[in-house]
Amino acid sequence: MLETIILGTGGTIPLKNRWLASCLLRCSGSDVLIDCGEGTQIAIKSAGYSMSSIDILCLTHCHADHISGLPGLLLTMGNESRTKPLTVVGPRGIKAAINGLLAIAPIVFELDIHEISPEDLETWQTPFTAGKMQIFPFPVDHDFPCAGFRVEVPRGGKFNPAKARENNVPQALWSKLQKNQQVESDGVIYTQDMVLDAPRKGIKVVYATDSRPVPRIAEEARQADLLICEGMYGDPGKLARVIESHHMLFSEAATLAQTAQVKRMLLTHYSPGLDHPEEYIQYAQEIFPNSFCAVDGMKEVLAFEED
Amino acid sequence: MLETIILGTGGTIPLKNRWLASCLLRCSGSDVLIDCGEGTQIAIKSAGYSMSSIDILCLTHCHADHISGLPGLLLTMGNESRTKPLTVVGPRGIKAAINGLLAIAPIVFELDIHEISPEDLETWQTPFTAGKMQIFPFPVDHDFPCAGFRVEVPRGGKFNPAKARENNVPQALWSKLQKNQQVESDGVIYTQDMVLDAPRKGIKVVYATDSRPVPRIAEEARQADLLICEGMYGDPGKLARVIESHHMLFSEAATLAQTAQVKRMLLTHYSPGLDHPEEYIQYAQEIFPNSFCAVDGMKEVLAFEED
Repeated sequence: MLETIILGTGGTIPLKNRWLASCLLRCSGSDVLIDCGEGTQIAIKSAGYSMSSIDILCLTHCHADHISGLPGLLLTMGNESRTKPLTVVGPRGIKAAINGLLAIAPIVFELDIHEISPEDLETWQTPFTAGKMQIFPFPVDHDFPCAGFRVEVPRGGKFNPAKARENNVPQALWSKLQKNQQVESDGVIYTQDMVLDAPRKGIKVVYATDSRPVPRIAEEARQADLLICEGMYGDPGKLARVIESHHMLFSEAATLAQTAQVKRMLLTHYSPGLDHPEEYIQYAQEIFPNSFCAVDGMKEVLAFEED
Repeated sequence: MLETIILGTGGTIPLKNRWLASCLLRCSGSDVLIDCGEGTQIAIKSAGYSMSSIDILCLTHCHADHISGLPGLLLTMGNESRTKPLTVVGPRGIKAAINGLLAIAPIVFELDIHEISPEDLETWQTPFTAGKMQIFPFPVDHDFPCAGFRVEVPRGGKFNPAKARENNVPQALWSKLQKNQQVESDGVIYTQDMVLDAPRKGIKVVYATDSRPVPRIAEEARQADLLICEGMYGDPGKLARVIESHHMLFSEAATLAQTAQVKRMLLTHYSPGLDHPEEYIQYAQEIFPNSFCAVDGMKEVLAFEED
């Protein structure tokens, strides 16, 4: 099970009733935070969560509305007696930005910063792991080096006693092999695939803001359970504006969702001038019916599909 | 007339219902902001004001809860097409902190930063001026270089026709001399003091947070109209804690107000653990009856005294 909490849905500036876009992903005691603009620490508390349990902070990019809450977040983690390192993952520029912000945020715990170059981001394959979550950054198309994040919770195959017998796995080892990659007994090595069916479909969430609607987003989101996507404006008349500022219309996000055949798409990262995003949802739903406007504090619980 | 708007009353971390301590001072079209923690730009908007009109930003010190909102403030000023320079005044450390924060806040307008050394802060006499407001920084006692601010709106003397006649000022110059320091006519220089009585009592506000209750605060606040003062805790049992962290109890702030004979004192900069400051106001009021707990958004309008 993966919980996805939309902490904020705003772009550019935080508003009285709309925190800057960020998202908390929770799975089996591990937490991943994506982006941390001004006020994100308040949004986390308002949603009923704690900062101290965050294992990985993913930063889409270094524009202030995505990172300006970092000093406050780090200091509050410190006030909560955090000692374990915090992994930070993001595109080119995050190290300089974080070093700048640390001028006002003296902390005692370590930051394990993974700044991924544009070239490496194109082909990044090794997941960052937080418990059962695997996080894969990928490039999106903004006016600044910017990453999207694909978060997967893989699911192993079902136990298959017939297969275990075919592979001559002693029954005493069946239980142990379901929990371990391999087990040795009497000098013979037995591997998990000898007792399990092929891996089942896991859970997949893709988060992509601050981008034009490039094909890569749809590729990463292929058959995802949830796509959380940039939607700066709903009004089709704002196309020139989103092209110029490297953002997206609701309809463009919906086309990505439709192409990727995701189960559900949530729009976020609204312009501060967009008071009522839901008034424009038709422009997304007529392309991809399972499009919805995210609101601050919205929580989605994603479960594995039935066997 | 001077408007004082308490934008936030929180110390350490911003809370859902309490912004970090900051204060907006407004007088005849000029605005001064004191401190800018995470979320201050939202507090300004929530209170119904704009960022673009701020002339001077006073920073008490560089702890994150007093400065972490700066990148967002500057970027929003930029989005509002600001081109005029912003004067920033504060104690040692503000330049390094601001330079760090500028890593995520590219702006086109100039910052005119006045970083005042501890030695200079002790004896600072030259006011920073924003329209009719004169701002005098002074040292307080924190665990980090930290300033308080005395803000004055001076008021000239009343026009005195008898004095003008005594000084042989031609009647044709009377009106002009009330608006100008000096006027020349037929080779003779006439000065304002020839037609005006002695200056009258102006308006004085003192802002002092993040300090132990040092005598200097009372000296600066001598007969002030308003003292806005640090009050981390109300409970007298927290004395050791405020001594250790260089803050104040309500009772200590009240003693300063009583010593300074101010008209009114507002407590602010509460601990995040202090849910209901007003429950402890008795500890201040039994020392100085005109003590009150500030709340976010509180506005005080200070007028000149009657002639």
